[in-house]
Amino acid sequence: MTAAAPAAGTGPDKPPVIGVFDSGFGGLTVLRALVERLPQARYAFLGDTARLPYGSKSRRTIARYAAQSAQFLVNEQGAEYMVIACNTASALALDAIQEAVPVPVLGVIEPGAAAAQCASSNGDVLVIATDATVQSHAYAAACQARGLRAIEKACPLLVPLVEEGWTAHPVTAEVVRIYLDELRAQAADEGMSPDTLVLGCTHYPLLRRQIEQVLAVSGAGGIRVIDSAESTAETAVRLFNGRAAAKPGETAAQTEIRCFATDSVEKFERLGSRFLERPVGHVELIDLGG
Amino acid sequence: MTAAAPAAGTGPDKPPVIGVFDSGFGGLTVLRALVERLPQARYAFLGDTARLPYGSKSRRTIARYAAQSAQFLVNEQGAEYMVIACNTASALALDAIQEAVPVPVLGVIEPGAAAAQCASSNGDVLVIATDATVQSHAYAAACQARGLRAIEKACPLLVPLVEEGWTAHPVTAEVVRIYLDELRAQAADEGMSPDTLVLGCTHYPLLRRQIEQVLAVSGAGGIRVIDSAESTAETAVRLFNGRAAAKPGETAAQTEIRCFATDSVEKFERLGSRFLERPVGHVELIDLGG
Repeated sequence: MTAAAPAAGTGPDKPPVIGVFDSGFGGLTVLRALVERLPQARYAFLGDTARLPYGSKSRRTIARYAAQSAQFLVNEQGAEYMVIACNTASALALDAIQEAVPVPVLGVIEPGAAAAQCASSNGDVLVIATDATVQSHAYAAACQARGLRAIEKACPLLVPLVEEGWTAHPVTAEVVRIYLDELRAQAADEGMSPDTLVLGCTHYPLLRRQIEQVLAVSGAGGIRVIDSAESTAETAVRLFNGRAAAKPGETAAQTEIRCFATDSVEKFERLGSRFLERPVGHVELIDLGG
Repeated sequence: MTAAAPAAGTGPDKPPVIGVFDSGFGGLTVLRALVERLPQARYAFLGDTARLPYGSKSRRTIARYAAQSAQFLVNEQGAEYMVIACNTASALALDAIQEAVPVPVLGVIEPGAAAAQCASSNGDVLVIATDATVQSHAYAAACQARGLRAIEKACPLLVPLVEEGWTAHPVTAEVVRIYLDELRAQAADEGMSPDTLVLGCTHYPLLRRQIEQVLAVSGAGGIRVIDSAESTAETAVRLFNGRAAAKPGETAAQTEIRCFATDSVEKFERLGSRFLERPVGHVELIDLGG
């Protein structure tokens, strides 16, 4: 990749460009939460759809892909801040991304763990995520550093169910029930009484209602569900230090968002609006090699 | 990639090396069927696990990935024949692979369509496959060329269900029922009376029993299920012209198989045996770039 001049202005009068990166378009749930809180910023979102899913790949591969993607957003789109809107890349490649670009980089794991700490009364936390995120134990480590006990479970069927559009489907409720029953049984075996559940994948906020209903029906309605998209956006507000705060009268509807993908632009445009909760518009196809 | 000297001998006394390629390890169902019929051949299997799934990617991307993979098997492993044990790559990239390597290349689509022609009395055929295979309409075209009418449906949840190990799970039966009911309703709307169902993805043979049970319960037990892994292996026997036929007393247990993957070697070793129906042994990690 050539280090082209930034495409966006970076002067003090211009609102900053925030680069948001995901392996696919699940990270649009994080972008949606960011736009709500920082509507005056400009956004460049990249979904590395040619190489998704990261969730089943190795650390080495994920780090290489994520660093290339971050470099595109910083070097070619002028991003002054990077949000890694992908749990797997945050878990496995945050260091590699921080080394690859000279701007502040925020992942989703730390904000998720911080929100769990605020939500939990007894410090016992459940985490559901992809295979690779769970195998990294990044949530367990981030929770432990805050004095929480976390138990993690991979739920590999949930992403395909969301992408099939079955977010309110009885099959999805049944799959959610099976995964959560297994996870709660495992927690009970370890003597834990969890009161908080972290959604450790950016696809899962689309299943939040199903998850809360399953918990309620299972007599576990007291478990609070933490959406790391929301907590990441709240952390971003503090990190970006007011530079992109809204002026009076500004709304998210006016926010400038450019979307890029490495493949499957049509699918991105079709499904992305479910995650962003508004049309994603035109998605530009880019080639990162490989 | 450097064009290294073939790693395997190719003299007239040596049994030929057959290269078998898939985006993941589903193609091991094709390798299993090949080994059963041609136990004396030597096999080099490559799963491009760093870049799977192909099923949701574009033709351009799939063609590039598949050509690189075939070149590895021919140039570096001495394959004299190539079997593309991946429906998506066969559907979208068979031409690109044939251009990329100077050996005979066999895909899974044509053998599947040929088997459907033999099985069907009335020429009305159902096909289930991944998104990309269905969008290519490769099966519909291959069936039409043989005077069959085919109707295709993408079933994107079936691969994740197989990889989760839920091959005999009630959730999987329910998902299969939903997909097949929708497909049969669509066929009825078009005035078709299908008597044949092609499994157009190398993961689906692991669901064959579930699929047959769902058809029986739905009053469609007369529909014959075609496993394109089996029909591809039968075509290979003819194509390879007896060069790799067994000598008396030789069995598949003695067959030399080398397995390569571009990522997730541990997962390949763990799950692969379900598809191959015997241990896959050591899987070598290779780097195709990207």
